[in-house]
Amino acid sequence: MSRTGAVELLAVPGLPMINAGDDLAALIAAGLDRGGLRPRAQDVLVIAQKIVSKAEGRLIELASVTPSPKAKALAQEVQKDPRLVELILSESVRVVRSRPNVLIVEHRLGFVMANAGIDQSNVGLADGVERALLLPVDPDGTAEVLRANLGARYGAPLAVLIIDSFGRAWRRGTAGVAIGASGMPALLDLRGNPDLFGRTLQVSISGFADEIASAASLVMGQGDEAQPVVLVRGLSWTAPANPARELVRPASEDLFR
Amino acid sequence: MSRTGAVELLAVPGLPMINAGDDLAALIAAGLDRGGLRPRAQDVLVIAQKIVSKAEGRLIELASVTPSPKAKALAQEVQKDPRLVELILSESVRVVRSRPNVLIVEHRLGFVMANAGIDQSNVGLADGVERALLLPVDPDGTAEVLRANLGARYGAPLAVLIIDSFGRAWRRGTAGVAIGASGMPALLDLRGNPDLFGRTLQVSISGFADEIASAASLVMGQGDEAQPVVLVRGLSWTAPANPARELVRPASEDLFR
Repeated sequence: MSRTGAVELLAVPGLPMINAGDDLAALIAAGLDRGGLRPRAQDVLVIAQKIVSKAEGRLIELASVTPSPKAKALAQEVQKDPRLVELILSESVRVVRSRPNVLIVEHRLGFVMANAGIDQSNVGLADGVERALLLPVDPDGTAEVLRANLGARYGAPLAVLIIDSFGRAWRRGTAGVAIGASGMPALLDLRGNPDLFGRTLQVSISGFADEIASAASLVMGQGDEAQPVVLVRGLSWTAPANPARELVRPASEDLFR
Repeated sequence: MSRTGAVELLAVPGLPMINAGDDLAALIAAGLDRGGLRPRAQDVLVIAQKIVSKAEGRLIELASVTPSPKAKALAQEVQKDPRLVELILSESVRVVRSRPNVLIVEHRLGFVMANAGIDQSNVGLADGVERALLLPVDPDGTAEVLRANLGARYGAPLAVLIIDSFGRAWRRGTAGVAIGASGMPALLDLRGNPDLFGRTLQVSISGFADEIASAASLVMGQGDEAQPVVLVRGLSWTAPANPARELVRPASEDLFR
């Protein structure tokens, strides 16, 4: 955790619209150079899920989707497009809650989330073609590839997060969360560290990468793809790296699924 | 939301240990002055719940607590101190889940959280007296009082958040959340704003104050009271202010309690 007393959240300027097959590492490096931002050790490069998904070609034309009978029935219950529901089910291992206008699932990556994270905003209705954007195939793996590429380019051991915004149980409004991580402890276990009085900390496992994701989300804003990459500078940590899948609470420990 | 491209998280230096009856506004102002930090419009002053609770005298000696039969029975189930369970029940309207080592309640302020937010770390075992620290009585109200005081002192319309770290359903690790807010939209409703392609945003209610809380939490760290106040600079908003209680999902809309 930071003890330096100051953290900066710096938007990486001028990222272009991203298309399938684009070289994200090269485009992010160009943005960093444009902004005069040379990554340093323990800088965290935070990347919006949307541009990773687009680069991976995860944008699906709804006209290409044939809903199953199961998807059609569920679509009627939740009042959503049956083709969208088909995509949601194809990305999920289980429906957790379904109500009119609500479809919460367990994503194949373990995330409990609305609509399997499938997004219909900012995906290009301008040409009249309806599309939906799926989560990246393997966000921890993609974060690792980007970290290796950009780390080598700048000669600095930086960290990479891929983030999305999730709704939460019990609280209104979405908050940024990490769905991919490399080069840093996504989950930071501080148990056993003494507090100021020498008493062992009781609740001391931090969703470190989720807090960074929420911070970066403030700069990314919403409804705007102009700032999908944010450099977070000023944090420090000594714990070994672990991936974002460590942030998923195992079903065996979960009282709410 | 910020469009300026840079947000700073600045620790307010040199806050002393806080005791019951302390004038928090004066102590925070002294820290701001010490750090050369003069608040500006739309700066967000983020304050750890612990120091607010201490200033309010919410530190309770466990020896003064007599557990009820109900608290004793529940304490046996969850394997916690019956006096602590008595305090938890006294601050709660309902038990949501109880298991060995787990006690999740609905706090009287509406928060669904572990142990009613009652903290036993960093509350002074050095003298051998066991104490527990309860949440502030009215964190939105206290945020409002602090905002009015500090806003007048600096002649700037700043915002104040009081934050805690909560565990989450489905995800491991805690994340900062706002339990009190004044001078800013804790919940930011962006519905109806068009996205880049003119499609109306679908999921566009942001837990704005919670994201700021998580960001500030990165600087506050854990197991350390040296940095319980953080100034967040560089955000902007146009929506009207609303309090942190707006972040509580009403039971009628909640599928997980």
